[in-house]
Amino acid sequence: MAVKPKVLLLGATGETGASILNGLQESGNFDVEVLVRPASAVKPSVQKLREQGLTIWPVDLDDFKGLVSAMTGTDILISAIGPNDLLQQKKLLQAAKLTGVKRVIPCAFTTVAAPTGAMLLRDEKEEVYNAIKFLGIPYTVIDVGYWYQISFPTLPSGKVDYAQMVPVKTIHGDGTAPNILTDLRDIGRFVARIIMDDRTINRYVYTSGDVLSENEIYRIAEEVSGEKLEPSRVSNEDIEASVDQAKAALAESPHDNMKRIGVFVAQYEHSKYVRVDNSPRYAAYLGYLNARQLYPDFQPTSFRDFFAEVLAGKGRKVYS
Amino acid sequence: MAVKPKVLLLGATGETGASILNGLQESGNFDVEVLVRPASAVKPSVQKLREQGLTIWPVDLDDFKGLVSAMTGTDILISAIGPNDLLQQKKLLQAAKLTGVKRVIPCAFTTVAAPTGAMLLRDEKEEVYNAIKFLGIPYTVIDVGYWYQISFPTLPSGKVDYAQMVPVKTIHGDGTAPNILTDLRDIGRFVARIIMDDRTINRYVYTSGDVLSENEIYRIAEEVSGEKLEPSRVSNEDIEASVDQAKAALAESPHDNMKRIGVFVAQYEHSKYVRVDNSPRYAAYLGYLNARQLYPDFQPTSFRDFFAEVLAGKGRKVYS
Repeated sequence: MAVKPKVLLLGATGETGASILNGLQESGNFDVEVLVRPASAVKPSVQKLREQGLTIWPVDLDDFKGLVSAMTGTDILISAIGPNDLLQQKKLLQAAKLTGVKRVIPCAFTTVAAPTGAMLLRDEKEEVYNAIKFLGIPYTVIDVGYWYQISFPTLPSGKVDYAQMVPVKTIHGDGTAPNILTDLRDIGRFVARIIMDDRTINRYVYTSGDVLSENEIYRIAEEVSGEKLEPSRVSNEDIEASVDQAKAALAESPHDNMKRIGVFVAQYEHSKYVRVDNSPRYAAYLGYLNARQLYPDFQPTSFRDFFAEVLAGKGRKVYS
Repeated sequence: MAVKPKVLLLGATGETGASILNGLQESGNFDVEVLVRPASAVKPSVQKLREQGLTIWPVDLDDFKGLVSAMTGTDILISAIGPNDLLQQKKLLQAAKLTGVKRVIPCAFTTVAAPTGAMLLRDEKEEVYNAIKFLGIPYTVIDVGYWYQISFPTLPSGKVDYAQMVPVKTIHGDGTAPNILTDLRDIGRFVARIIMDDRTINRYVYTSGDVLSENEIYRIAEEVSGEKLEPSRVSNEDIEASVDQAKAALAESPHDNMKRIGVFVAQYEHSKYVRVDNSPRYAAYLGYLNARQLYPDFQPTSFRDFFAEVLAGKGRKVYS
């Protein structure tokens, strides 16, 4: 029997990392090990992974020798690091180069957007992608669009409130911008396919469960729930003003991570709905492969089915 | 008869731009017009173009209305701007977007290299490519490797000195790094093919006449000339030291264009011979298409034939 590729996963206890870990385990095709920061090694979430029998590498990202030990024999390095630590991934790359990692999956897992200038969050990812290309390490960038889990509307009945991180009651612009969406739970299933596929080496790939405009999302929510939704409207000018306000707030407190997240959120809206970046058309322009075309047999969860599940009380609030 | 695509060319009197103009005219497939700075409009080189019957647009790059006028009806915008003015290309892009230019060819026309961090010259080009992607303008990046015209060795007899911008008497490292090379005169011929090809839209393409190591270049020069060459050797450490020195000199006089060119030259050596960036392998890694594979019927000048021409006295010193 062939030896399974060894995957080293960073960020396994985050929302995206947990989906990836689950997808890789579900596929049965990988020998997965997990890289955590020493301070996190004692957390209950990491203890749970240890109890599952996973090999845990508690290594500080400044500990080059420790990283080399963890990466020795690794075929595929996957990073699902948090949005405020993106540039720390650069510390992983020298070790990946030295140990001959066959493919690095840097932390992308976000919407399709311009390489620089559209979103601070994307700009920092670009810096990491360029560091990978500087070293010439084989890589795949995997973007997933926006999650279903933070895209479904609030209902007048309050029936889906339990599963919402924040209320969703707004339509941006005219509501027609197509938006690449993936169920958070399908991310890992897509990743398990993409990282074994030679066609995706040194390429950008996007996944999707559905591509929907906000108008379509609200219509589906009405159809599934039988409730009448009356979203408020936000103009493009208001979205632009929100970006400016969020940037000004961050400029005042440049080390305040909540202010950074404020910019991320405002720029997501702007990128998705004003620029229409997170769309199949712009993804094709940027040279992305479409995972749905690569794996026509794989049936991800549809937004309609996802929303029906949430309505039936089987949802989960993310980041809770 | 179909209307020929209108090409607007910036930099037509430079070495690369002149090759492009010639290639486009030779093909007979384009209606070429030329964009020049008002200060250059009276130069003899521009007068010559006018005498050929070319439409000349004397427009300052800060004159947005003027750029819009020049670009109205343009199908393909080609920039062969000089290496010290690269970022000024950003001023062209808004006009190109507004007037619906169908394809922009930004000033690449250099060696294959990492997007950022390897060469200052390449870093600035990347900033322009990202500005194009931000706007979503269709584009093609065309790189050409290093020119034959500055890659052939000096002979002990002095027979090729007349055609050399600077003497070439050195082998870098062990001399085995493969190097993408194109005859300057073939650049325009390649461009005429590439800009009419749907396969190259929103892609990076590299041209080549030959791919040769320095050891191979010196061997060909010996075979063709019958002379014995004894190149000096430069170690990788010396090349790195040269880069550091050139950077330090620029840091002392950041606005001195000669110091910038000093950095460009040192980093070219480093990128070509230490990093081995300007190679088909790294080009493939970065996702480049290979123009030789796209156009198998097109026979560019070989380095051997080029060197024989120079030896026969039919060469020309570039930038003279």
